[in-house]
Amino acid sequence: ITDFCAGGCCGRQTVREQHGKDESVHRCRPPDVVVFPRCVEEVSALAKLCHRHQLPIIPFGTGTGLEGGVGAVKGGVCFSLRNMDQILDLHPEDFDVTVEPGVTRKALNSYLRETGLWFPVDPGADASLCGMAATSASGTNAVRYGTMRENVMNLEVVLADGSVIHTAGRNRRPRKTAAGYNLTNLFVGSEGTLGIITKTTLRLYGVPEEMVSAVCSFSSVQAAVDSTVQILQAGVPIARIEFLDEVMIDACNKFSSLSYPVSPTLFLEFHGSERSLEEQVNTTEDITQSNGGSDFQWARDAETRNRLWKARHDAWYAALAMRPGCKAYATDVCVPLSRLPHIIVETKEDLIESRLTGHIVGHVGDGNFHCLMVMDPSDQDELHRVHLFSQRLARRALAMDGTCTGEHGVGLGKRSLLCEEVGPSVIRVMQSLKDAIDPNNLMNPGKILL
Amino acid sequence: ITDFCAGGCCGRQTVREQHGKDESVHRCRPPDVVVFPRCVEEVSALAKLCHRHQLPIIPFGTGTGLEGGVGAVKGGVCFSLRNMDQILDLHPEDFDVTVEPGVTRKALNSYLRETGLWFPVDPGADASLCGMAATSASGTNAVRYGTMRENVMNLEVVLADGSVIHTAGRNRRPRKTAAGYNLTNLFVGSEGTLGIITKTTLRLYGVPEEMVSAVCSFSSVQAAVDSTVQILQAGVPIARIEFLDEVMIDACNKFSSLSYPVSPTLFLEFHGSERSLEEQVNTTEDITQSNGGSDFQWARDAETRNRLWKARHDAWYAALAMRPGCKAYATDVCVPLSRLPHIIVETKEDLIESRLTGHIVGHVGDGNFHCLMVMDPSDQDELHRVHLFSQRLARRALAMDGTCTGEHGVGLGKRSLLCEEVGPSVIRVMQSLKDAIDPNNLMNPGKILL
Ligand SMILES: Cc1cc2nc3c(=O)[nH]c(=O)nc-3n(C[C@H](O)[C@H](O)[C@H](O)COP(=O)(O)OP(=O)(O)OC[C@H]3O[C@@H](n4cnc5c(N)ncnc54)[C@H](O)[C@@H]3O)c2cc1C
Ligand SMILES: Cc1cc2nc3c(=O)[nH]c(=O)nc-3n(C[C@H](O)[C@H](O)[C@H](O)COP(=O)(O)OP(=O)(O)OC[C@H]3O[C@@H](n4cnc5c(N)ncnc54)[C@H](O)[C@@H]3O)c2cc1C
Repeated sequence: ITDFCAGGCCGRQTVREQHGKDESVHRCRPPDVVVFPRCVEEVSALAKLCHRHQLPIIPFGTGTGLEGGVGAVKGGVCFSLRNMDQILDLHPEDFDVTVEPGVTRKALNSYLRETGLWFPVDPGADASLCGMAATSASGTNAVRYGTMRENVMNLEVVLADGSVIHTAGRNRRPRKTAAGYNLTNLFVGSEGTLGIITKTTLRLYGVPEEMVSAVCSFSSVQAAVDSTVQILQAGVPIARIEFLDEVMIDACNKFSSLSYPVSPTLFLEFHGSERSLEEQVNTTEDITQSNGGSDFQWARDAETRNRLWKARHDAWYAALAMRPGCKAYATDVCVPLSRLPHIIVETKEDLIESRLTGHIVGHVGDGNFHCLMVMDPSDQDELHRVHLFSQRLARRALAMDGTCTGEHGVGLGKRSLLCEEVGPSVIRVMQSLKDAIDPNNLMNPGKILL
Repeated sequence: ITDFCAGGCCGRQTVREQHGKDESVHRCRPPDVVVFPRCVEEVSALAKLCHRHQLPIIPFGTGTGLEGGVGAVKGGVCFSLRNMDQILDLHPEDFDVTVEPGVTRKALNSYLRETGLWFPVDPGADASLCGMAATSASGTNAVRYGTMRENVMNLEVVLADGSVIHTAGRNRRPRKTAAGYNLTNLFVGSEGTLGIITKTTLRLYGVPEEMVSAVCSFSSVQAAVDSTVQILQAGVPIARIEFLDEVMIDACNKFSSLSYPVSPTLFLEFHGSERSLEEQVNTTEDITQSNGGSDFQWARDAETRNRLWKARHDAWYAALAMRPGCKAYATDVCVPLSRLPHIIVETKEDLIESRLTGHIVGHVGDGNFHCLMVMDPSDQDELHRVHLFSQRLARRALAMDGTCTGEHGVGLGKRSLLCEEVGPSVIRVMQSLKDAIDPNNLMNPGKILL
């Protein structure tokens, strides 16, 4: 069992055993070769070579994906893009920048520090921005700033035959366009199955004048989630609103030396001018208090705020630390806001009935949450229960008009759930698009579609 | 010459003469038959019939499109969807609603009046919401609320063979999803060339607590547009920021009995709480004044605001009224914000050199503007000059990293400009997608792709 396989090329959540066709926990599946191209011309030349020899191509960003996306299920060539790490064409006055696939979100934000701009999409992990485009990632700030779908303006892509395209045309970066089919958003979320993203042009934002974070505890899941729904309904432009159940906050307290009450909790963040912040905070406090929430515990200065969000981002490691020697597995679903209390309560009951250690944590402002499970990888029965539980959770989301994945993608793990979600005629359309763009099924074969 | 052809089925900007392969002013091209289905089953049955007899299918919303999209260039069957006018599945607590293709944006907003919710995307014309999805429309509020791309959550579509799909799966309406290829955003903006949209699920917003509009005049285009760029750079969440050049404001004054100074002008609107409004307005006034702008002329109550925006939305008719007996033609481009002053100044010079009556008006907050030209339809030379001018304007936008269309779409008029914009390899990918979804080229043939 490995988090990363020995070659560093299988990504997260890999174990050696396989459970059925769709796995919740993924096997380690190394490719035959790993290449490290340094520029788009090399990517294109290598892709042509693979094309000539009909070898599968598996793009690899930073390997933080959670659905087995970089596993080489049919062998082939892993394209590790880490050596292409240039930040190009920053246009501060137009709020856009273009980056190569080796650039991570933290690297970009460090680079931007002096400019007063930032890129807000934040999946916690320090993922590559092109990998984030490939998985349609989002994370804690999406409730305010949108996901990769809303923030990618253009992509340079190498197709399976080695040809290079720019989804919106070379160098194009208008804030909106109605020019032809929206290829950019077809490639966003395509998980390496349509082409290799070698550049992404991103929308940037001004760093907010003021930011403040707060923590609020509740006596029940229902009260915490009801507060979330009401805060959004009140139109508060909240920047982050993260839910942690009592199991998760307990783990975070222990891992990050914090001392929050062990009960359902919201981590909040507000962005804006001083006055707007005051107003946002007042409205939010009125709502949380009417739901019996605790007084806010503040994180005002940058250091305290960073510590708070680091604790949130370390949730995975915190969960793992609760059962030493175990492995973690995270699954994600997303439902319409009003269904959140119901699905979270049912899911917690299911965890108990399934005798599983599960931590619920989520971007509840989008109706999106994860269940982080910790299990003993040598316990086949527990692995099987994790698998069945994850399927039930996804189906519960589907039954509530939701989706089996709000942000982690389909990868290997959710291919048959995708069929249930969209139905056979949509799968046929998706397959026909895949066939049109990658007729020999060389690009990351076996992912998204069965 | 007609605005709408006799059968009401050719849409705007139609004249009997054709200029080259791509027309700036479109010929009247009626279909062989117009059908008026009442439900998706009828749409599907009729599509199957067309499929069997290989007849072109032209979806028709309200015919307000500006690029000749509903012209039946190869004859065939026009599907007028006006009889499917139900508003379905309003979920106020989740901020979403589903509508049939006969529902216009004004009808939806009237329906929502009691709920405290609204749908902000506003192309001025009272277009059908499914037609707006089909053209990826936007308009005055896009700077704050996004375009149709960001606000369509799901589509029901009848494909050319009569099969019915839901792009995100039946009944799905999570606020975000990473489940498979993003078909929703492939059909948004596909201009009837991939399928007939028979339902769209839309994101709604809470009606802002307060709204206020203002008008500000400037001594130069540069000063007005510089103010726009600075307002956005300052992070003001402005709801509307519309530029009208002196020719346009003169026409609006005359048409709508207003008396604004005849000089480059911004129409502004602010949404938010009372305090946030005050702050937004203060920042904006500081900026406009530092650029020599006039004092704001306020429109505070609903009636005065409506009159202001009606005048803006009547720009087309105002322009027409300046030269009785003439026809109007509108073209749109979009560039990165910082290029706006330059392109508008150059375009105004070009209008003078080309001896054309042109009014510049635009959603400058997105870098998007239109040139509304008024011409004598019997003057072949003038029509030709309009055509050449429009091509130059589009190429000017392309040379500045922009697009030949920010919101009106490609239709018939901009097919070869689209090729210039995205290049031949992207066109090949677009063509392969079209072939995959509509292999017999029955859906609105001759649009978008040459
Ligand atoms: C602790 C932790 C927390 C996380 N939290 C979140 C979260 O809150 N929200 C969220 O959305 N995700 C989250 N993730 C998942 C992960 O960070 C995202 O999926 C991320 O977008 C993956 O980026 P990557 O560069 O690591 O991609 P990889 O893991 O390398 O690859 C993922 C998929 O994208 C493809 N791919 C990668 N790069 C390219 C490229 N250049 N061109 C084409 N295809 C490519 C791969 O083939 C694969 O299918 C989390 C992960 C961890 C470990
Ligand atoms: C005065 C005026 C001002 C305008 N201002 C703006 C503006 O600010 N912003 C903007 O974006 N647009 C603007 N427009 C253009 C127009 O309003 C939009 O393009 C609108 O989205 C068209 O909607 P419609 O229902 O009238 O579509 P139609 O004109 O009927 O059709 C337009 C295209 O969409 C296709 N289509 C229509 N309905 C469907 C359907 N149900 N399924 C599949 N395909 C379909 C048609 O085949 C055609 O290709 C303006 C138009 C006018 C007349």
